[in-house]
Amino acid sequence: MTRLTIRIDFDGGRQVGHGKIRLLELIGEHGSISRAAREMKMSYRRAWLLADEVNRMFSEPVLETQHGGVGGGHARLTSFGHALVGHYRAIESQALKSFGKQIADLERRLLPAAKVASK
Amino acid sequence: MTRLTIRIDFDGGRQVGHGKIRLLELIGEHGSISRAAREMKMSYRRAWLLADEVNRMFSEPVLETQHGGVGGGHARLTSFGHALVGHYRAIESQALKSFGKQIADLERRLLPAAKVASK
Repeated sequence: MTRLTIRIDFDGGRQVGHGKIRLLELIGEHGSISRAAREMKMSYRRAWLLADEVNRMFSEPVLETQHGGVGGGHARLTSFGHALVGHYRAIESQALKSFGKQIADLERRLLPAAKVASK
Repeated sequence: MTRLTIRIDFDGGRQVGHGKIRLLELIGEHGSISRAAREMKMSYRRAWLLADEVNRMFSEPVLETQHGGVGGGHARLTSFGHALVGHYRAIESQALKSFGKQIADLERRLLPAAKVASK
């Protein structure tokens, strides 16, 4: 299946793309940065830095974290965090729909992928 | 200015995104892989490998190269190469237009970028 991924580059080198959005989704799902990091096969430190970067990008935070307690810290998306993820995914799926014809056109010209895919 | 970049991932790990498309555009403009590489601040070897990758992706080549001669080799886009670049850029600009409202919405919530932008 062909995938279309988008990346939004704002002024000042601030960027939102597939990686950060997926991380936010997984944090929302698991309520935990460390579980999200594990699922994305990245270090806790890297996940924390990425989440912190998005958290400082907008006038509202995308994440709320709660430290400590018996089961360790908790993290959850704010309503703005949910909106950000929703906007991004909507753009992505609408783009794939809108440009399905052009993409199918390119797909038809692809060489068979057998050799590459069987790696 | 906010930019929207797209990446298309086909089966078999084959990917077309901003970097390869920009490289093709510059090769088309300059008629030379080495000049395109210089403008993108990448090594000739890397530019050649990227161009070769796209050239082997589809049933038609995107580039034609001519070796040697006094002024060194020449490279030019095939008509399919032009079509590929055109499709990609059309998807990109239509996406930015279609999703302008959502993106403007996010822009309004960005924090002032002064500190980051003045780096």
